[in-house]
Amino acid sequence: MKDISTTDAPVRVACCQIPVMVGDPLGNRVSARAAIQAAADAGARIIVLPELANVGYMFDNRAQLQAAAETADGPSVREWELLARERDLVIVAGFAEAGDDGLVYNSAVLVDKTGRRAVYRKAHLWDREKDNLFTPGSDAPPVVDTPWGRIGMLICYDLEFPEWVRIPALEGAELLCCPVNWPLYPRPISERPTEIVKVQANATVNRMFIAAADRTGQERGQDWLGGSVVVDADGFPVTRITLGREAMLLADLNLGEARTKTISDRNDVHADRRPSLYAQ
Amino acid sequence: MKDISTTDAPVRVACCQIPVMVGDPLGNRVSARAAIQAAADAGARIIVLPELANVGYMFDNRAQLQAAAETADGPSVREWELLARERDLVIVAGFAEAGDDGLVYNSAVLVDKTGRRAVYRKAHLWDREKDNLFTPGSDAPPVVDTPWGRIGMLICYDLEFPEWVRIPALEGAELLCCPVNWPLYPRPISERPTEIVKVQANATVNRMFIAAADRTGQERGQDWLGGSVVVDADGFPVTRITLGREAMLLADLNLGEARTKTISDRNDVHADRRPSLYAQ
Repeated sequence: MKDISTTDAPVRVACCQIPVMVGDPLGNRVSARAAIQAAADAGARIIVLPELANVGYMFDNRAQLQAAAETADGPSVREWELLARERDLVIVAGFAEAGDDGLVYNSAVLVDKTGRRAVYRKAHLWDREKDNLFTPGSDAPPVVDTPWGRIGMLICYDLEFPEWVRIPALEGAELLCCPVNWPLYPRPISERPTEIVKVQANATVNRMFIAAADRTGQERGQDWLGGSVVVDADGFPVTRITLGREAMLLADLNLGEARTKTISDRNDVHADRRPSLYAQ
Repeated sequence: MKDISTTDAPVRVACCQIPVMVGDPLGNRVSARAAIQAAADAGARIIVLPELANVGYMFDNRAQLQAAAETADGPSVREWELLARERDLVIVAGFAEAGDDGLVYNSAVLVDKTGRRAVYRKAHLWDREKDNLFTPGSDAPPVVDTPWGRIGMLICYDLEFPEWVRIPALEGAELLCCPVNWPLYPRPISERPTEIVKVQANATVNRMFIAAADRTGQERGQDWLGGSVVVDADGFPVTRITLGREAMLLADLNLGEARTKTISDRNDVHADRRPSLYAQ
């Protein structure tokens, strides 16, 4: 399974750290399009946008969210498909998804030049998302073969459940693309935000690249971290961390490196697991 | 379960970052004793020593290890019991354990003033440990009630398996005491060793304190990181990281803080898990 997809050529990955605003769907669509085009112009082939990039985050209530949510073939996803086809890109973006079942999901979509490849619905909801806004997904995160490697998706708070991160990792994801919206919290001076620390740990215990695209811009009094980061399979950031402002982070990754899970002559981060011992 | 043991008074925890040498059991015992006494003199009530503190690490072969290993009531553990009784301490220390079954385990013991409370056998073996030296343990890590809080134990490479760390965390461990022997590996300038990053992530996803006691001292050509650290329940180090040299790290912890798993109005790091979705 591990050898079917990737070449050994590096691919440029972009995290688009952009503002998103509740109540401005057209503005959000324009921002996302501009960011994708700028990243493609800079040579990126895999482009990650923040969580809920079509709608923003600070909803007053369910009705407002429901009115803004789009189906998985709505205008935002269709525009991303078009851009992916025109420029031969893989785009992973977060969006508020109006499900066929009348429920709203905090979702991510992966599109490439062939169209929509997979949708993932966030399984671990954060704070007010639980408050009659979103319904949690219960399907395993998909892993998609692309010309540049096997790509998985998770969304924000999902990254705080290492058991959940294992699923795409064990399915052979070489790069995990993660739309996030990280609220700004206090932390000790000189300490890196633990959101980034958790990304690093998830990467290294799985020998898997992770690209997390965070948002920026104050929104209804909420400050956002702006902590986008690309981490290599050893767990080290390969992008400059650019907190709190709009940014495009670029990294050239050889995703094939993540096919090797070996970390010593006798150790393999996945083969060394002892699942029969792990309690749920 | 969560309210039976701890008080809200802070307790001083020490990680003793000391050299350990293969082939010098008496020297190792003297070093451990001196470190425990110095930590107790400095007011520590919970004292963590490195992995394999009685024997060192760089064994030539099984026979050499077998000759050096001690039973769980051998001279090293008995000395630690004596010191714990004399000074009213909790001591967690790594030791090479000669099992009743004739096998050798890479173990940790927890002793307090009442004597030996628990032994844990490392379940995930690192590199040459697998090479006809140690047998991996298969028992879940114990969690022990002490006057200062509920304490769990894991050993070194165990910390790279977040599923395994969950077990003592879900059993209510407020402090995880981890004897480690972290070999020195190259890393990017200005990056913290990922061993420490993984400790931080394990702490924050469980809201649990972690005290990792690393060794130091070159041993048969092997350099050691000397990366001992105490991390709080938010995942931030509360000790100065003192790489590569002998050190005693002290931290005053209110372990009761780890009983609260809440991280937002609607989030709890343990209750938010969705174990039925997690594959093994």
